[in-house]
Amino acid sequence: MQKSLILFFLLLFTLRVSAEDGYRLWLRYDRITDESVRSGYVDRFATFRMGTGVDSSSATLRAAIDELRTGLAGMLGTNLAPARGAQKSGSGELTFARVPADQIGAEGYRITDTDGGLRLSASDDAGFLYGVFHLLRMVQMGESLEGISIEEQPEKAVRILNHWDNLDGTVERGYAGFSIFNWHTLPEIIDQRYTDYARACASVGINGSVVTNVNANALIFREDYLDKAAALADVFRPYGIKLYLTARFSSPMELGGLDTADPLDPAVMAWWKEKVDEIYTRIPDFGGFVVKANSEGQPGPREYGRSHAEGANMLADALAPHDGIVMWRAFVYNSDPDADRAMQAYEEFVPLDGTFRDNVMVQVKNGPIDFQPREPFSPLFGATPKTPLLLELQITKEYLGQGTHLVGLAPMFTETLEADTYQQGKGTTVASTVRGLAGVANIGTDRNWTGHPFNQADWYAFGRLAWDPAMSAEAIYAEWAALTYDGEPEVAQTIVDMLIESREICVNYMTPLGLAHQMATGHHYGPGPWVSNLGRPEWNPAYYNRADSNGIGFDRTESGSNALAQYAPQVQAMFADPKTCPPKYLLWFHHLPWDWEMQNGEILWDELCRRYQEGVEGTEWLAARWQSLEGKVDPERHQQVTQYLEVQQREAKWWRDASIAYFRSLSGLPLPEGVPEPEHDLAYYKGLSYPYAPGIQPQW
Amino acid sequence: MQKSLILFFLLLFTLRVSAEDGYRLWLRYDRITDESVRSGYVDRFATFRMGTGVDSSSATLRAAIDELRTGLAGMLGTNLAPARGAQKSGSGELTFARVPADQIGAEGYRITDTDGGLRLSASDDAGFLYGVFHLLRMVQMGESLEGISIEEQPEKAVRILNHWDNLDGTVERGYAGFSIFNWHTLPEIIDQRYTDYARACASVGINGSVVTNVNANALIFREDYLDKAAALADVFRPYGIKLYLTARFSSPMELGGLDTADPLDPAVMAWWKEKVDEIYTRIPDFGGFVVKANSEGQPGPREYGRSHAEGANMLADALAPHDGIVMWRAFVYNSDPDADRAMQAYEEFVPLDGTFRDNVMVQVKNGPIDFQPREPFSPLFGATPKTPLLLELQITKEYLGQGTHLVGLAPMFTETLEADTYQQGKGTTVASTVRGLAGVANIGTDRNWTGHPFNQADWYAFGRLAWDPAMSAEAIYAEWAALTYDGEPEVAQTIVDMLIESREICVNYMTPLGLAHQMATGHHYGPGPWVSNLGRPEWNPAYYNRADSNGIGFDRTESGSNALAQYAPQVQAMFADPKTCPPKYLLWFHHLPWDWEMQNGEILWDELCRRYQEGVEGTEWLAARWQSLEGKVDPERHQQVTQYLEVQQREAKWWRDASIAYFRSLSGLPLPEGVPEPEHDLAYYKGLSYPYAPGIQPQW
Repeated sequence: MQKSLILFFLLLFTLRVSAEDGYRLWLRYDRITDESVRSGYVDRFATFRMGTGVDSSSATLRAAIDELRTGLAGMLGTNLAPARGAQKSGSGELTFARVPADQIGAEGYRITDTDGGLRLSASDDAGFLYGVFHLLRMVQMGESLEGISIEEQPEKAVRILNHWDNLDGTVERGYAGFSIFNWHTLPEIIDQRYTDYARACASVGINGSVVTNVNANALIFREDYLDKAAALADVFRPYGIKLYLTARFSSPMELGGLDTADPLDPAVMAWWKEKVDEIYTRIPDFGGFVVKANSEGQPGPREYGRSHAEGANMLADALAPHDGIVMWRAFVYNSDPDADRAMQAYEEFVPLDGTFRDNVMVQVKNGPIDFQPREPFSPLFGATPKTPLLLELQITKEYLGQGTHLVGLAPMFTETLEADTYQQGKGTTVASTVRGLAGVANIGTDRNWTGHPFNQADWYAFGRLAWDPAMSAEAIYAEWAALTYDGEPEVAQTIVDMLIESREICVNYMTPLGLAHQMATGHHYGPGPWVSNLGRPEWNPAYYNRADSNGIGFDRTESGSNALAQYAPQVQAMFADPKTCPPKYLLWFHHLPWDWEMQNGEILWDELCRRYQEGVEGTEWLAARWQSLEGKVDPERHQQVTQYLEVQQREAKWWRDASIAYFRSLSGLPLPEGVPEPEHDLAYYKGLSYPYAPGIQPQW
Repeated sequence: MQKSLILFFLLLFTLRVSAEDGYRLWLRYDRITDESVRSGYVDRFATFRMGTGVDSSSATLRAAIDELRTGLAGMLGTNLAPARGAQKSGSGELTFARVPADQIGAEGYRITDTDGGLRLSASDDAGFLYGVFHLLRMVQMGESLEGISIEEQPEKAVRILNHWDNLDGTVERGYAGFSIFNWHTLPEIIDQRYTDYARACASVGINGSVVTNVNANALIFREDYLDKAAALADVFRPYGIKLYLTARFSSPMELGGLDTADPLDPAVMAWWKEKVDEIYTRIPDFGGFVVKANSEGQPGPREYGRSHAEGANMLADALAPHDGIVMWRAFVYNSDPDADRAMQAYEEFVPLDGTFRDNVMVQVKNGPIDFQPREPFSPLFGATPKTPLLLELQITKEYLGQGTHLVGLAPMFTETLEADTYQQGKGTTVASTVRGLAGVANIGTDRNWTGHPFNQADWYAFGRLAWDPAMSAEAIYAEWAALTYDGEPEVAQTIVDMLIESREICVNYMTPLGLAHQMATGHHYGPGPWVSNLGRPEWNPAYYNRADSNGIGFDRTESGSNALAQYAPQVQAMFADPKTCPPKYLLWFHHLPWDWEMQNGEILWDELCRRYQEGVEGTEWLAARWQSLEGKVDPERHQQVTQYLEVQQREAKWWRDASIAYFRSLSGLPLPEGVPEPEHDLAYYKGLSYPYAPGIQPQW
């Protein structure tokens, strides 16, 4: 026994050497160390059996069984075997039972304790797969299977990642290395990452992947690239994930040699129809297109005097025979200096309600501008009752520290999902107005997929919320922390606390009190509230803060742009009066003098400065919380997170000091007590340059 | 025992799941499975002891001890402990003994069996580190330590990797992902990769790393970037690796705001002196600069009417007080259509011999043109007796399949190293004419560092040859294969055979019989022998093949450019007569009619076609050899290599068919027996486009 124990620790040691590099994400499947807990599960998982009508040779079933066997071998040290002979009841047998779709709907599953055995019921293969991941998660978290009766059904049908990945391997707004999709070596070279990506997505219920950037490239439709895309689709398929592509609207010209991309031109329609048919010969379950049209320089139907609906419907008609869908982005704005950018998506799309084909969904960002640390929800939600919408969230942190800051996004996602639009009366939450969730992925070639180890939690949270938008951020993070880190409950609780608090901390040091889009030009890395010289007015931070010697904030009430009028009356009532408007949206809706008296009795200037300071102090709190876990989590990731927290603390101070230095140059007011003098003068902050900040699309 | 055995296999299984992703390179340290072999080593490595004068607290000694303990823990399952009390002779003790430098020179070491114990002697810390890696290698390879007495000394002082890595994370001519150096997150984020890179380099004796591209960026000299570079140097230092940077000659203008970069201008000299001093305050052991000047658009002294020596000496003077060196590249050529590009480096640098400062080395590519699958050695070797030279080799495969083809480069490297220049009489090998080797790295963010698993062997071979240029390619590959793959001797032997044969196979399907630079434009991916329309004549493949209806080849004899005259008379005699010139250099030196009779009796056209075909058949042979190892090497890497071999077989056919289709359009001759008709017509091959082939520098 002595010898076997040595052996055990030795191998454990060898394992550890390369273990905690984060590659395994939340699917770690490490051996359960509590022997009584482990043996309890061992008794449960002796054999598995396929019930009538379950095709165990289907690729999805094979993937599910593989995952189950790998997971249980790791956690329990057992080899889950197929059952032989007649069923023995109460015998530690896991039965896969197919049930009719009217009992359990698409992708859903039921797990029940059958007197010592377990029954996993579903009406389709995806349901079995999701059920297996649920079971594995329960074992990972040490949850009891005793007497369980669980039924799960995805709340949303579309649960999809958007990769802003370019064919050259770069990722627009990517902060975790470069693209995991190597288009050059596809279709022959199938990286193990592709499979592990699909496993991770499936484990949280993600069922679609748009593998190309919304700033799209027509080359993806060339024959050889379609072969490459098909190879990816083959990897994804067993995991219930459909492949989607972004469609560059001018493809018929660039690739097809036509002299127009007018959606009403018969040659254009024919080109798309033929191209779509060609795609489906290679990818029979192809999902469809995402389109960014007439937005930030992308081509679109408006160039030909056609509406977004006419453009979308043309593509939808090509896809409809194959059950493909079009996800048409509502992210459009023009460069009219007198317009309020926050209003334009609504103005463009509400009049089109009812004119879209059934297989078109309009994809709407959570806020009316662009993935800011905080925005009120977009007024489009609930405003187009005849048009199915998707909620687009950004998992990659273009505006929230660019992947080096610890900022849990689940509180931001749930803030939007839970927001009441009142469009169909009280309780018309944003969540209730959408058919699905699209998340801009934060995944790259970094070994741990996401750079900062905690960024994995955002990927996890996105998937879980797309499956069940009613989940709380706390509950999701509690799962993630327990799956991803070992140790006492204190470890998971500390991690949850950090993630939950971190978003407000970030809002405070970047854009407190409803400010937005104060980031530096182009790369959006760091502060640039003074920038006012860009080619388009609505790209300038100064356009958004409207700060001058008199005050600060964007008046979106009746006296200003009146963007507020796009919301339901009940929402308008919440925000219209600066005296009662929640402080978090104050400067989003109101332009106020520097000495405006806040609800807490402070003047606006003092409150603004104190918020920046609170943000900085928040990053110190995060570092202290993490420091308290030293020796309690694995040293590799503890060290890594500690390094990132140093970056965050330094950059939070940069945000505070640069913002205060600029706004003070306008307000002329002294700093309130407790807020230190900026480390450098304003000229210093204006002079900083970061030509190689990551995430911008290079021009090859 | 039953239970412990189960445990063993279980853990082994878990281990395997993520083990063979290639990240560990040749430093795998897996447990030795032969129990008698293992226990033999266990007896040898009970304790270690520091002799007098050995500072065990030095960073390098600590790195050495850490490596030793990690390696032995993995391979033997033991915990090598520091010795306590007086020395027990013959006791399984490893003693580190410091000896004077006149006994063992810099970086050298001696390992001796001391009656059951081992003694590792060195005169400096680097020697101990290299000795530890030598010991670990012996244990990995199962070599006996009985009675050993080994003394090793590096043959070359400069053993350095050149990374053509850009500050934006891209790698010029990189085919294994993107740069491992994340300049954006440095200096705070220290990726574990940085350490593991340094370990791998040190294990094969590499002692320098140029971390920036020769197409250089002045930004690296900005204060914040120097802090980042210093953080990397801190990681490298314990592993005996000096950090070097590339110096953009115009930096005083771009960063310093001067209006000239004239090397004789006092302000320019002062700027560089101050900048160099600043670098050394951050990096006390900074190695120096690599400079690409007046080459392919890079700025240089010639713009100011100054010579390469005047440019290099100015930098050398700034570095000299700190013992830094300048590595000045000889890779220069102009765009004179009547000149022979192969002659220009010689013409430019031979007249400068004797005018360089002592701390300047001129860095010369192996061949006179540019890293082709085969070139004769550069005539510069041995031609500048007063100027120290470095041999520059390209480990990344810009011209040899771009990382997806299995092509072992050691036979190519040794072909150059062993080539006799006759410059100081017979036996003046290229190896004997250089102070060191510089290798353009093939390392990227791919999990296994190099993309194709076999590309690791080139990194390994470069280091070993820089340490000892007399090593045979076979011996090096035998080491690498044994360290990197488990299994019977048959496995290693097959891998060695594949690596050794593969280079000639590649030459045959790409550029047989002395052809060169037939690659497509810009990215150099795939064949483009027809290209003749580029901006500079010497960028055109047609410039190199000179094929027309009469014949093919570049006349570099007296009747042509007479480049041959740059070589020693004995070399000229080998190549001057096409009847006796070795076929491998035939078309490099001679333009010959299509029906020229080869030494084997074939006409040139038939022989050319047959060589292409042999190349294609060679790739099939490679695939068959590898197939024979199925089940004998780990499935992960077997599968991976199999996929790459499919790419190589397809692309070898592409090379053959495109080349033959083009040359046939000129020769008008029928294909010889055994050579199949090209799959497509010439227009097809000319029409192929690969806008996102990897490895080109993007413009952000």
